[in-house]
Amino acid sequence: MTVAEPGTTAVLAGGVGAARMLAGLIQVVDPTTITAVVNTADDLILHGLEISPDLDTVTYTLAGAIDPDRGWGLAGETWQAMESLRRYGGEAWFNLGDRDLGTHLFRTGRRRSGASLSEVTLDIAQAWGLDVRLLPVTDDVIRTRLTVEGEGEIAFQEYFVHRQHSVAVSAVRFEGADVSTPAPGVLAAIAGATTVVIAPSNPIVSIGPVLAVPGVREAVMARRSDVVAVSPIVAGAALKGPADRLLVDLGHESSVVGVARIYAELAATLVIDTADAELAGAVEAEGMRCIVTDTIMSSPARSAALGRVVLGGRPS
Amino acid sequence: MTVAEPGTTAVLAGGVGAARMLAGLIQVVDPTTITAVVNTADDLILHGLEISPDLDTVTYTLAGAIDPDRGWGLAGETWQAMESLRRYGGEAWFNLGDRDLGTHLFRTGRRRSGASLSEVTLDIAQAWGLDVRLLPVTDDVIRTRLTVEGEGEIAFQEYFVHRQHSVAVSAVRFEGADVSTPAPGVLAAIAGATTVVIAPSNPIVSIGPVLAVPGVREAVMARRSDVVAVSPIVAGAALKGPADRLLVDLGHESSVVGVARIYAELAATLVIDTADAELAGAVEAEGMRCIVTDTIMSSPARSAALGRVVLGGRPS
Repeated sequence: MTVAEPGTTAVLAGGVGAARMLAGLIQVVDPTTITAVVNTADDLILHGLEISPDLDTVTYTLAGAIDPDRGWGLAGETWQAMESLRRYGGEAWFNLGDRDLGTHLFRTGRRRSGASLSEVTLDIAQAWGLDVRLLPVTDDVIRTRLTVEGEGEIAFQEYFVHRQHSVAVSAVRFEGADVSTPAPGVLAAIAGATTVVIAPSNPIVSIGPVLAVPGVREAVMARRSDVVAVSPIVAGAALKGPADRLLVDLGHESSVVGVARIYAELAATLVIDTADAELAGAVEAEGMRCIVTDTIMSSPARSAALGRVVLGGRPS
Repeated sequence: MTVAEPGTTAVLAGGVGAARMLAGLIQVVDPTTITAVVNTADDLILHGLEISPDLDTVTYTLAGAIDPDRGWGLAGETWQAMESLRRYGGEAWFNLGDRDLGTHLFRTGRRRSGASLSEVTLDIAQAWGLDVRLLPVTDDVIRTRLTVEGEGEIAFQEYFVHRQHSVAVSAVRFEGADVSTPAPGVLAAIAGATTVVIAPSNPIVSIGPVLAVPGVREAVMARRSDVVAVSPIVAGAALKGPADRLLVDLGHESSVVGVARIYAELAATLVIDTADAELAGAVEAEGMRCIVTDTIMSSPARSAALGRVVLGGRPS
């Protein structure tokens, strides 16, 4: 009898959708065989603190510590620091819970002592007991900048949190991406993975920056036949966030077909929701294999079921 | 009948002792006529946040918000962020309460937007409704560095909080002081004050740095006849902190006479505690007028009584 080599999985990840996808995958395969390559273009420095929203959302979700109602931040959080900041008239539109602040204090302190974002991310993941390997896509600073009509460019969190993504966007770029390099382990994880998963994150502002780090897009394309993307668009709309509006603003179609056009050169397979079953043919016409299944990860069991489909019943 | 011009008071201030002195003075004269010139050489950047312990102690005390038991930080404080930081193994020896963190977040954010420490200090004082004018002695970065036997130099909070001032110190210097300039208003407050008060703060590491900012010592000396110092040493010991040990380590005498020798060229008057009444003659032998009174500010009424003595029954 021969024992099958255990497979490995690389997941290109944004925030909430990717976190739920990963929470499903760890129920299906050995978590130590999974590497998440996480978007850092939403990161920001606020009040002097280094904040990595997508890395933290993934970490807190996999640790079972995420607030289930808000979908971000820690469960059982308190808000004393923010209340105090408001007393001073400080910029309090980006809510930072007291326990969450501990994460940012740690990250900022370690970064100022010379640690890379990868190193700090590993420390934080270990402190939460995570078995999945979390990698920021790059240790360099990359920042999403959105052009808003009549205003010029604004930063991602200004758009996403402060404006609640209610403004029209005419262009998106990832500042610093062109001169960035992938964090240690990123390219090897993609090259060596049995399956590369593009999580159901925003294709423009979550997966876009991951692919914009030089070498990453090429690494994914080189693995196209083993790349499975999960559509974040269901019945024409984003489950969460501004993906639908952004796609339309930037000239794409807010549908699984629009997603297929964006991912066709990267992924051989697109997983779409049963709500979009009638578009499976149109997806295949874009040159992708189409899998129709329930993609709404409203429970751990549903996340696991989606994980099983994405890995195609691969032995773990 | 002529109305007396209201007098003004300038107070050279460290942390706890100065805060209590100021809390007494505001009961005795119109608070808007008081300017506190506060030590900033204990300031530090921790986890990326700009922390000004003496300014905050004075602010919180005058706002009636200081924790009465600890003597630092805010009453009713919570510690969620620190608990979270400890989970990561972060440097948690310098305790930062959640509400206190709001102050540091605000200060750091405003400083990064280009505001000077003076400007931020004014904003914070206004938010707490303070009528006393609080000035950092300088807007430049000055830092107390202590030479510890066998170790070389360490930073002030490393000495004061982390080591709990339990090590022998052979030298003290104020890094950056020689190239610093007084914050706007500092020299004018001293030059124009009816009375200049040297608060009962540590002469070496609290008042020392204030005097080390070029121009401040000279401004105080020029007002010597109107300068009243209050001894922080009572019966040979510091009420709080390491002043007694530091004085001895650095070759001074830990007594009101030792304090008189340090302040004689700056102040015409030294206020000492009744416990040291028998040393009044020795103080006067150093060339200072000596006032003996109760200097232990264990209640607001006692702080006010000391304030009345320090201002010499001056009409307000």
